[in-house]
Amino acid sequence: MKVLILGGDGYLGWPTAMHLAARKHEVMVVDNYLRRTLAFQTRSESLLPNPNLEQRADLFEKKTGHKIDVCIGDITDYEFLRTLVADFCPDGLVHYAEQPSAPYSMRGHGEAALTLKNNLMTTLNVVWAVMQERPGCQIVKLGTMGEYGTPNIDIEEGWIDLEHKGRKDRFLFPRQAGSLYHTTKIMDTDLLWFYVRMANLRVTDLMQGPVYGLTTPEAELDNELMPSFHYDDIFGTVINRFLVQAVAGIPLTVYGKGDQVRGYLNLNDTLQCVTLALEEPAQAGDLRIFNQFTETFTVNELAERVVCAAQRLDIQVAISHVSNPRKEAEDHYYNPMRHGLVELGFKPQKLTDEVVMDMLRTIEQYKARIDTCIVQPRVTWGCHRSGELN
Amino acid sequence: MKVLILGGDGYLGWPTAMHLAARKHEVMVVDNYLRRTLAFQTRSESLLPNPNLEQRADLFEKKTGHKIDVCIGDITDYEFLRTLVADFCPDGLVHYAEQPSAPYSMRGHGEAALTLKNNLMTTLNVVWAVMQERPGCQIVKLGTMGEYGTPNIDIEEGWIDLEHKGRKDRFLFPRQAGSLYHTTKIMDTDLLWFYVRMANLRVTDLMQGPVYGLTTPEAELDNELMPSFHYDDIFGTVINRFLVQAVAGIPLTVYGKGDQVRGYLNLNDTLQCVTLALEEPAQAGDLRIFNQFTETFTVNELAERVVCAAQRLDIQVAISHVSNPRKEAEDHYYNPMRHGLVELGFKPQKLTDEVVMDMLRTIEQYKARIDTCIVQPRVTWGCHRSGELN
Repeated sequence: MKVLILGGDGYLGWPTAMHLAARKHEVMVVDNYLRRTLAFQTRSESLLPNPNLEQRADLFEKKTGHKIDVCIGDITDYEFLRTLVADFCPDGLVHYAEQPSAPYSMRGHGEAALTLKNNLMTTLNVVWAVMQERPGCQIVKLGTMGEYGTPNIDIEEGWIDLEHKGRKDRFLFPRQAGSLYHTTKIMDTDLLWFYVRMANLRVTDLMQGPVYGLTTPEAELDNELMPSFHYDDIFGTVINRFLVQAVAGIPLTVYGKGDQVRGYLNLNDTLQCVTLALEEPAQAGDLRIFNQFTETFTVNELAERVVCAAQRLDIQVAISHVSNPRKEAEDHYYNPMRHGLVELGFKPQKLTDEVVMDMLRTIEQYKARIDTCIVQPRVTWGCHRSGELN
Repeated sequence: MKVLILGGDGYLGWPTAMHLAARKHEVMVVDNYLRRTLAFQTRSESLLPNPNLEQRADLFEKKTGHKIDVCIGDITDYEFLRTLVADFCPDGLVHYAEQPSAPYSMRGHGEAALTLKNNLMTTLNVVWAVMQERPGCQIVKLGTMGEYGTPNIDIEEGWIDLEHKGRKDRFLFPRQAGSLYHTTKIMDTDLLWFYVRMANLRVTDLMQGPVYGLTTPEAELDNELMPSFHYDDIFGTVINRFLVQAVAGIPLTVYGKGDQVRGYLNLNDTLQCVTLALEEPAQAGDLRIFNQFTETFTVNELAERVVCAAQRLDIQVAISHVSNPRKEAEDHYYNPMRHGLVELGFKPQKLTDEVVMDMLRTIEQYKARIDTCIVQPRVTWGCHRSGELN
């Protein structure tokens, strides 16, 4: 299968490219290094050395014999993407090309505008390029469990059947997110759902929870093949941040009470799910939505898991409850469903002590590269009066 | 009250400005003439002569003694809007500054991108300018009944209480629109709902049905004060299009079966509703949503009403069922609620024969200006393969 991966430099994009190439798919990655630029601008660089895409593709080919094509460009430029789709003729397109940080999107007007414009325009362009040049190509889009927020009812998989005053209909499950970034993902779903109905597209929208981990079988071939791994408060997800804090001897920063529950998954589970979505495609005219996570935890539980596993490696770690920089419920009901991917064959990998210890050991090799100034919250949610700095 | 009207050149914007100024509010209108430019580019000009805003404001002041301030600029330019809000210090802001045509948004990629970018960025900038410079200012935003689509259940006013598997919560009423333009209004609601929760904004989101009519008490003072009135297939709403077709002796173009139901209202009712929303403001932290329409009709009923009223003026009119250029249900359940504005005192004006005859008489004065080439559908919904022209 020919697969075009947009956002191929990212935490998920590059490991996905290697994984699909190793499965003998013909892969092209596209990126303009936007996340890398924003991370550099906000002092939030990746822990691991990540050479440019051409260098990594060369190295990967040398190690495995599998080729990954690289194209550098901006998906918000429609003619660039349209031409690429027309020339490459993909059977599947994985759309990761979005500004991925919730705190970044809450930093100020400029960051909000960039996030909104980038994420919506990339999705619109993906839809149009496929519609105009390759209508049979399936789109696999990364959404987020954060689209649902934390409702007081069970979270179904994308859709809900409603009975209201004696009549019935089926709707997108209600969405209400906790950051502007997450809100752009809601809008992406609105956009995909509209064009699926208009143009019979084949779309899988993956509502993914926060991902953790830094190795995959392909990444282990060479440390220069490792993913972009952020551990700061802006681009780092919570487990990855805790792991680096543990190694650096910094107390784990739990935001607020720490009873916030989310559904988490291993980076390898992401690869498995995206591959399943591609290899078992959605039908034409179907917006197929899967909830993509392995286990739910409170933030406190995550912190305790990291503390325990660290102790087994003789690393002593403290937990620090810091004032919550976000506006979010800290004590809430959370019961999301997860059937679709399991029915396709998803075999999830749990967050065991061994998994945590493995990650800690890998991070220890890069201990000298940790910037200890960037693990405390630097962005607070809320309105910024003119003249205030955030 | 100081009121800033964004999109003050529009079909609703200019009459709103005159109406509020006549009620002794201090009014400033802002526009960059985007809709005028797009209408010109698509051969869809207004039937009525509409001088520029400065000329109309001068004329209005001469006729009434009421001043309307005019500022020409682009709301997608954040610094322009922020400075304006900081300098004018509005108590209320009416946001009409959006690309308002569904067919325009479906014409091609460029038009879709312009609509998405313009409508979302204006809304984001409105939120941020108010948040940063005037947090107490209430925002009155024009949404559309089209956000709801045509669900098989009763359409509640903005929100729905759900009971699911024995648990309860309250959500935005499900939304699924029939054009990209309408989808941008769904996204506007997503955006407003997010920032209302984050920053305690005061927002009224008006889910308005299609508007008809071309005079208001203030517009009748001089024909150069009349609103921008479109009757073509791209910028004209259905009743206005039928009225002009009747006067021009062209059969009324009913799209498809004509059993599509929508909720309609008179231009004067829009002014009444927007004024009520401003003068009875939403609370801080409240996203108040009203369904804003007066009566529901099928398209066939509207066509018959126009035919009957025209006959009373000795104008013979035929009805022509043309192939539906849109993808929409032509036979569907439709039962929208409408309580909130009535509770605030809204006294709707019905579409009587007399109202239709009055409109026909006014249009007859401009008969020579009708461009009979622009009343048939020129834009079809659906996917456009590369190389196809729409």
